[in-house]
Amino acid sequence: MASTKPIFIAVIGAGGVGKCFLSQLRDLAVRRPSPKLSLCYIATSRKALYNDDYSSINLENAIDTLANSSKTPQSLPDLVDYLTKAPGKAIIVDNTSSQDVADAYPTVLKAGVSVVTPNKKAFSGSYKLWQDIFQASAASGAKVYHESSVGAGLPVISTLKDLVETGDEVTKIEGVFSGTMSFLFNSFAPTSGGGGKWSDEVKKAKELGYTEPDPRDDLNGLDVARKLTILARLAGLPVESPTSFPVESLIPKELESCSSGDEFLEKLPAFDQHMDEKKASAGDKVLRFVGSIDVATKSVKVGLQTFELSHPIAALKGSDNIISFYTKRYGSNALIVQGAGAGGDVTAMGVTADLIKVIGQIAQ
Amino acid sequence: MASTKPIFIAVIGAGGVGKCFLSQLRDLAVRRPSPKLSLCYIATSRKALYNDDYSSINLENAIDTLANSSKTPQSLPDLVDYLTKAPGKAIIVDNTSSQDVADAYPTVLKAGVSVVTPNKKAFSGSYKLWQDIFQASAASGAKVYHESSVGAGLPVISTLKDLVETGDEVTKIEGVFSGTMSFLFNSFAPTSGGGGKWSDEVKKAKELGYTEPDPRDDLNGLDVARKLTILARLAGLPVESPTSFPVESLIPKELESCSSGDEFLEKLPAFDQHMDEKKASAGDKVLRFVGSIDVATKSVKVGLQTFELSHPIAALKGSDNIISFYTKRYGSNALIVQGAGAGGDVTAMGVTADLIKVIGQIAQ
Repeated sequence: MASTKPIFIAVIGAGGVGKCFLSQLRDLAVRRPSPKLSLCYIATSRKALYNDDYSSINLENAIDTLANSSKTPQSLPDLVDYLTKAPGKAIIVDNTSSQDVADAYPTVLKAGVSVVTPNKKAFSGSYKLWQDIFQASAASGAKVYHESSVGAGLPVISTLKDLVETGDEVTKIEGVFSGTMSFLFNSFAPTSGGGGKWSDEVKKAKELGYTEPDPRDDLNGLDVARKLTILARLAGLPVESPTSFPVESLIPKELESCSSGDEFLEKLPAFDQHMDEKKASAGDKVLRFVGSIDVATKSVKVGLQTFELSHPIAALKGSDNIISFYTKRYGSNALIVQGAGAGGDVTAMGVTADLIKVIGQIAQ
Repeated sequence: MASTKPIFIAVIGAGGVGKCFLSQLRDLAVRRPSPKLSLCYIATSRKALYNDDYSSINLENAIDTLANSSKTPQSLPDLVDYLTKAPGKAIIVDNTSSQDVADAYPTVLKAGVSVVTPNKKAFSGSYKLWQDIFQASAASGAKVYHESSVGAGLPVISTLKDLVETGDEVTKIEGVFSGTMSFLFNSFAPTSGGGGKWSDEVKKAKELGYTEPDPRDDLNGLDVARKLTILARLAGLPVESPTSFPVESLIPKELESCSSGDEFLEKLPAFDQHMDEKKASAGDKVLRFVGSIDVATKSVKVGLQTFELSHPIAALKGSDNIISFYTKRYGSNALIVQGAGAGGDVTAMGVTADLIKVIGQIAQ
């Protein structure tokens, strides 16, 4: 049963994840010739590339051609209009972290265009936007997949959806959801004891590219809070926003107003003693920065916790993520998913896997 | 976009997994009214229940009604004929472990009827059968999903398929694939040292229901070999059969000919010393029964291995499974999935999740 109609794909964003995705899309189009995948639109915030006849942009050199393009991006309403007129089903792949693009999902989906994205903003913003997105999808039949919005390519969203959709009762979700925090605490408070100074570890993590340009964007806990918001909502809790539950920031109050990440890093050593005290007070346990969702008590929180050395969270290595799902069916031993939760290739993998799933459902 | 045509479901097998599945199907039909799910056929090896007009069997009391039915099962060709004439797409859910049913999958799929199953036999039998199944599926467009054939409801098959389909290069798969073996070695050779006598642990496992009626059916390693065969094939190795690679049996040669499981258990203590020596020779490491696939060297093997205490396999608890995927994208830290890999409810969960995925693709 070869599908005959091509699938039209519009890609927004060509940064780290976007570039990896385009490379995976190129290979996918070769491996799976049917249905034909037509990359009919690609854009960054400044440039765009598209053909009025919906013919495919050459996937071999899309990034280079885009760099030399004289076209500017279409407005989102114009892009939706363009895609709904394509001679087949269309999918927008949003590889940005833009709130503006996220805000347009309900309109996109309502028009019958599916969405695949690692962008957390749509699913961790206001609860109203979350509801609008899934109502629009249900009404039009267009799909919305976002595996890489939590734990990059790790099977986190898909596993939670399978648990919920098959009628299991999720009681608790707990884990390390940030590669940066994982790396920092595995170095600062290793299970073997010892570990460096907190400020040194933050500097090292930045040098290795494990933090955002300003490390405070990791240390404020908001990235973890966004991921917890998404998982809590999938588990059935109507969480209002990522700031509607307790999130422990690891930025000392006095350094919140630093004008730059560099100034912050310069002044951070003065607060090492505070983190050393936290580490010492953990005693035989280890200190980790985790997120947890208790479904029964509707409690979501992000912050420091201590764990026995035999706990799976203590056994984590490098910058890996770990996510434990406690459910009625799985009992006292959780269903655990663990591995790299950041990086261009593994994030793009989650996007490509989602794209394959959406194609399987909308191909005609 | 409400789907209008109903989906027709035929269930073969009403044992432990089958009963749990029917209960999940009943809840699913209530939660997701569209497309309508019509249970038009259900059978054990002796009895069957179906309506000539394809109307749905009442899901509230299907098992009881089946027990009182005077109808006998249709032959598989007759069942296929019945389903292809249904007024909508059909799915066979094979909750048996029957080789006969598995052998019919190519015919079923060729006729356009999809298959969802936890039955390992079809995917771990001859390589010819494997090829016939996937060729038939590709030709007709009918789907075949079998998540629960490895690790029950754990996301193992789906994760491996995502890795392969998005173009990652799987280099190694390693893990504990048997709940029975996991329980036995976590008790016999705990990471904390000590542990009981081997024969006592086998007896205890049997009493707790963790083994097959004859424990030799677990100890021969064939169940693990079947799972490894499936994963190796998905990773691209054309493994001929589960007996075409080295499998270490934990049944002493002298006890292979025992006429019953009870006789085996009676005579097993005489061989405890052998297992004690194995345990002692592990030194600082722990002894575990694992399966591994090395894709580059095309080597698949099942048997005893020793692991450092810090290795994720050593940290396993109870009767949990653990599966580590090493790939080019994930680098030296594996993508790990862990949790209960046996039990009616979690096995049925994998079947129900697969069913939802197939419905999403075939609904019209």
